[in-house]
Amino acid sequence: MEKIIGARFKNVNTYANRGMTLEADLKLSNEYYLVNDIAVIYKKPTPITISKVNYPSRVEAVIKEGYFKTPSTTDYNGIYKGKYIDFEAKETKLKTSFPLNNIHPHQIEHLKQIYKHGGIGFLIVRFVVINKTFLLPIEVLMRFLEENVRKSIPLSYFEKNGYIIKDKYNPRVDYLEILDKLYFGGNV
Amino acid sequence: MEKIIGARFKNVNTYANRGMTLEADLKLSNEYYLVNDIAVIYKKPTPITISKVNYPSRVEAVIKEGYFKTPSTTDYNGIYKGKYIDFEAKETKLKTSFPLNNIHPHQIEHLKQIYKHGGIGFLIVRFVVINKTFLLPIEVLMRFLEENVRKSIPLSYFEKNGYIIKDKYNPRVDYLEILDKLYFGGNV
Repeated sequence: MEKIIGARFKNVNTYANRGMTLEADLKLSNEYYLVNDIAVIYKKPTPITISKVNYPSRVEAVIKEGYFKTPSTTDYNGIYKGKYIDFEAKETKLKTSFPLNNIHPHQIEHLKQIYKHGGIGFLIVRFVVINKTFLLPIEVLMRFLEENVRKSIPLSYFEKNGYIIKDKYNPRVDYLEILDKLYFGGNV
Repeated sequence: MEKIIGARFKNVNTYANRGMTLEADLKLSNEYYLVNDIAVIYKKPTPITISKVNYPSRVEAVIKEGYFKTPSTTDYNGIYKGKYIDFEAKETKLKTSFPLNNIHPHQIEHLKQIYKHGGIGFLIVRFVVINKTFLLPIEVLMRFLEENVRKSIPLSYFEKNGYIIKDKYNPRVDYLEILDKLYFGGNV
């Protein structure tokens, strides 16, 4: 929450005329989907190991020591048109490629499992400097990983094999529009 | 994690011959489903608001102040046979009823939305004293809430309208077996 509010105030002098982080854009987009009864998709809480808790009163608990854990799954999941949806979202400041070390190997494993079990899994990657946001289905990422030993995905690969998510006012990052085309028989 | 380990050690002198908490049982059951390629279902991390973080070194971050937040969704979700699965799990020490204040109203709202969007939503409730664990589909809970003003669900209601999850060695809480019968045309 802090991060998102912080991101709003950073608005003025970052990322050209957009300003908000991908995370903040997704938060608003998911709220839009929820309020308009389109989909139920949430970001999971950050996993934390708590090692010390104080109880200043009977009803209050204050965490006094904790550590960030490596997440075992992706950040976002939920339901859309009866289908299970699962994705990870990342920004990069690089101009021509997305380094794969931004995604934990077990997160890619997780997305593969989702695919195998009949769900819809993907990455959303934003190149902040050129302000382009792509959706890359897990099946495309799997093909890339089979065919390449590169440690990053070139921007050109996203342009050819991914799907650009257009800037919109509301929802800001309308990734369900892409899923409609890819998985629900919408017009391309 | 701490809680689960704690529960294991409590093993010897609680809850008759079972000993483990429902949360620990579900953790093992979900691991079983995952390893055996049956389903991909995880417990979400506990939502926390972090207000102070120290960085003793460049790579390490220590949370020095944080607070527990009210969760906006249920604890568990994932995918089974292509379907979106979503549930909340609770134990009660009461012998004859399950108090509804154990579940946040927005968690029930969330489960209703899952139902509306074509997912499978339910509660798993364990009466620890009598060592019985029930699955109560959200559509049954919705009916109960429409027909009753009671603030707790009697055990007898679970026995009549819910589905008992039998004790097993592995997976310990085989709730997918119930879903097979209810939603995937398995034999009752």
